[in-house]
Amino acid sequence: MTAAVTLPADLIDNLKAALGPKGWSQDPQEIAPHVQDWRGRYKGETPILLKPASTGEVSAVVRLCAEAGVAITPQGGNTSLCGAATPQGEVLISLKRMTAVREIDTDNDSMTVEAGCVLESLQQTAEGTNRLFPLSLGSQGSAMIGGLISTNAGGVHVLRYGMTRELVLGLEAVLPDGTIWSGLTGLRKDNTGYDLKQLLIGAEGTLGIITAATLKLYPRPGRMELAFIGMNSVDDAVKFLGMAKQVSGGAVTAFEVMPNLALEFVLMRIPNTRDPLEAKHPWYVVCEMSFGRPDGARETMEAALEQGFEAGLVQDAVIAENEAQMQDLWRLRESIAEAERGQGLAVKHDVSIPVSKMSAFIDVATQRVNRDFPDGIVVAFGHVGDGNVHYNIACIDPDAHAGFMARAGEMSKIVYDTVDEFGGSISAEHGIGILKREELANRKPVDVKVMRAIKQALDPKGIMNPRVLF
Amino acid sequence: MTAAVTLPADLIDNLKAALGPKGWSQDPQEIAPHVQDWRGRYKGETPILLKPASTGEVSAVVRLCAEAGVAITPQGGNTSLCGAATPQGEVLISLKRMTAVREIDTDNDSMTVEAGCVLESLQQTAEGTNRLFPLSLGSQGSAMIGGLISTNAGGVHVLRYGMTRELVLGLEAVLPDGTIWSGLTGLRKDNTGYDLKQLLIGAEGTLGIITAATLKLYPRPGRMELAFIGMNSVDDAVKFLGMAKQVSGGAVTAFEVMPNLALEFVLMRIPNTRDPLEAKHPWYVVCEMSFGRPDGARETMEAALEQGFEAGLVQDAVIAENEAQMQDLWRLRESIAEAERGQGLAVKHDVSIPVSKMSAFIDVATQRVNRDFPDGIVVAFGHVGDGNVHYNIACIDPDAHAGFMARAGEMSKIVYDTVDEFGGSISAEHGIGILKREELANRKPVDVKVMRAIKQALDPKGIMNPRVLF
Repeated sequence: MTAAVTLPADLIDNLKAALGPKGWSQDPQEIAPHVQDWRGRYKGETPILLKPASTGEVSAVVRLCAEAGVAITPQGGNTSLCGAATPQGEVLISLKRMTAVREIDTDNDSMTVEAGCVLESLQQTAEGTNRLFPLSLGSQGSAMIGGLISTNAGGVHVLRYGMTRELVLGLEAVLPDGTIWSGLTGLRKDNTGYDLKQLLIGAEGTLGIITAATLKLYPRPGRMELAFIGMNSVDDAVKFLGMAKQVSGGAVTAFEVMPNLALEFVLMRIPNTRDPLEAKHPWYVVCEMSFGRPDGARETMEAALEQGFEAGLVQDAVIAENEAQMQDLWRLRESIAEAERGQGLAVKHDVSIPVSKMSAFIDVATQRVNRDFPDGIVVAFGHVGDGNVHYNIACIDPDAHAGFMARAGEMSKIVYDTVDEFGGSISAEHGIGILKREELANRKPVDVKVMRAIKQALDPKGIMNPRVLF
Repeated sequence: MTAAVTLPADLIDNLKAALGPKGWSQDPQEIAPHVQDWRGRYKGETPILLKPASTGEVSAVVRLCAEAGVAITPQGGNTSLCGAATPQGEVLISLKRMTAVREIDTDNDSMTVEAGCVLESLQQTAEGTNRLFPLSLGSQGSAMIGGLISTNAGGVHVLRYGMTRELVLGLEAVLPDGTIWSGLTGLRKDNTGYDLKQLLIGAEGTLGIITAATLKLYPRPGRMELAFIGMNSVDDAVKFLGMAKQVSGGAVTAFEVMPNLALEFVLMRIPNTRDPLEAKHPWYVVCEMSFGRPDGARETMEAALEQGFEAGLVQDAVIAENEAQMQDLWRLRESIAEAERGQGLAVKHDVSIPVSKMSAFIDVATQRVNRDFPDGIVVAFGHVGDGNVHYNIACIDPDAHAGFMARAGEMSKIVYDTVDEFGGSISAEHGIGILKREELANRKPVDVKVMRAIKQALDPKGIMNPRVLF
């Protein structure tokens, strides 16, 4: 039980008074889902759950906590994969009541929304104005935009539209002393000193609480094409990616790679799935292209596949004939995590590598893992178009789980050391949180020294999401 | 003559020794072009021009200056439009000898280059590997990539490819104490704490010296189409922009707007130009679309124009039939600044506004300017697709120049106040430098307070490009 749990009574009273009866809870049942992460790895506690309904209310409670030197954990949809949103005695501020869409400016292709908006609802809001908000990822039914921005979320469309960072035009945030920073803007160009929003994006709540954002919208593609392709190697997949980009002039919007074993897991564990190709192949690619107009779209995908076939890269392929087939093919990729869970435990790594070195990285890392952990089964899949691999080492023998997981640190060391050798990153899209802060400190000491100087400058009392990152 | 000019002799000796005979100059003739900005507005001086040839050499001289508490002005191609690269007694560090292309990784669509590479040569380097480096702007024949990153340069292709910020994957920089920060990476995804490169991008040299960068490359478009369009209003242009984006599914890569007066200036002053349309129109648009494949490209441009014509937005239009015609049409837009210079002096403003409010902004600002300055002629043109207007107020009577320019501050106040009212920015792409630092301090006090805290944390002695931004 940490110090924060014994908050001074007058602070508790003042926090409650600032938010009114709907704005807080000390009910253990209501609090329970907020103090545990969704993978069930982190369990925490909080003296009070605050639910401000406006930026002014966020500012008021942060100011009260700052004056009392009491620490805060901000929380969105609580879908963090690295323990970044689980309080350990901190005051918990949930943004879930801040769900307003403040403005949609179609002529400016932008929308201004509050931090608690769920991603899926924002995708629908954009669609309602005939626009696309391209951020798309597994947890979109519960992840909130404030948290997605705080973790600079990735997903399947980074290849064409960039990370969340590139989708944010402006931000509003409450700084660690309670000051409201009003950086909401729909501008594409604004060179007026340091771009402060860039610091808050990906800061995992350690520099302030994002309360609202102005987001970029895009035209909706006039036509999408999806192919499921059998290949012999990751190297072939990377070569074909370059070819597909050139042939289509940059129309490739997703490019996912998975090994045969992942497909086998999916076919075995997920109902209503079937192998779309006649024969087995060592690797599979899901390749999506988006086009402004339907004319020539199918022909472009076919031309890319044909060129890949002639070059010996494409072994077999099927193109989705309609929306339903497209969803079926996507499901083969998107069900991997769920299918893996059914197969047993795994030591997971969300890493990135330059696209050109992807294949060599997987080969070298897997040789090393196989040498030291002959019972570990490597399942490496993911957003290869962006150089992002989910490199998981699974143990399918239930009796061996305990001993296997006890050596997780050794496995991760092999993977992260290999990542470093290939100029990669130990966190591609999931973030550092609590999970990787020691790895970060050890592997990027100069960076962390600069980060700490910035943290100290903006949050001198260290009250904003402590323990995260550092 | 400032303090820095009387540098201690041993510091001068140490700086010279660190770089060798080719690495410095105290020759007034060699120094002269480096201590004056290219518009001729800022004139300065320096005790010594340093020309390091490697990141190690930059680090060595920065460390020497830091230890002595002596201030530094970093300089690239010296094309700043806001006085950000003119020393006033500081040690001048030119990056012009750091011109290596360290790596081209075509499979990763990236290249790693040193700060002194000139933009035009990088465009050619990319083209040589069948790739596109999309940054494109007037000064590309002399602007260097380190400076372009330090000012987060814009240009004509921001609409599709973003500002320079969005083209940078990794950076290497020398921090104010001489530490080399190695952030060179070709990764698309790297969520490991604060994204430090984002702080250096657009910092105008106040947080360190960028020595190298890893840049994004794109597929070269298979086909481009260019139209020159006559319109009745900026409002119609903005409406047509939305239409063209939708019809083409996001293929619009440039969208420039200019008034008839700007075209008149160009036709009068620039040799070998001609009006491509039969009749005069109040406004003109240069609309560029880029396509992956030639099929359907021309038809898409025609479809957009036809839809614009039917909606009463397009009055007349011509589509370039070949590369030469394309260049002729582009020249009408790109020669405006040169043609304006021939017409007399002007009070210039590089501002941005949400695209949706562009037309109203120009109307309101121009009413106010005309009311108070009946002899001022407004020429508002620019990258309207990004909300960026170069809002210039010209005086074409040479006898009135002195009195007119003396009131420049009053004119700028009208323009900037109107920008604020419309949620715009007083610096879209040119930066703050010396020119706008007071405007910034007055108009964004909370931002500047946070920026100063960051500056203090990373450059506690304040030696890195002093006077700039703050």
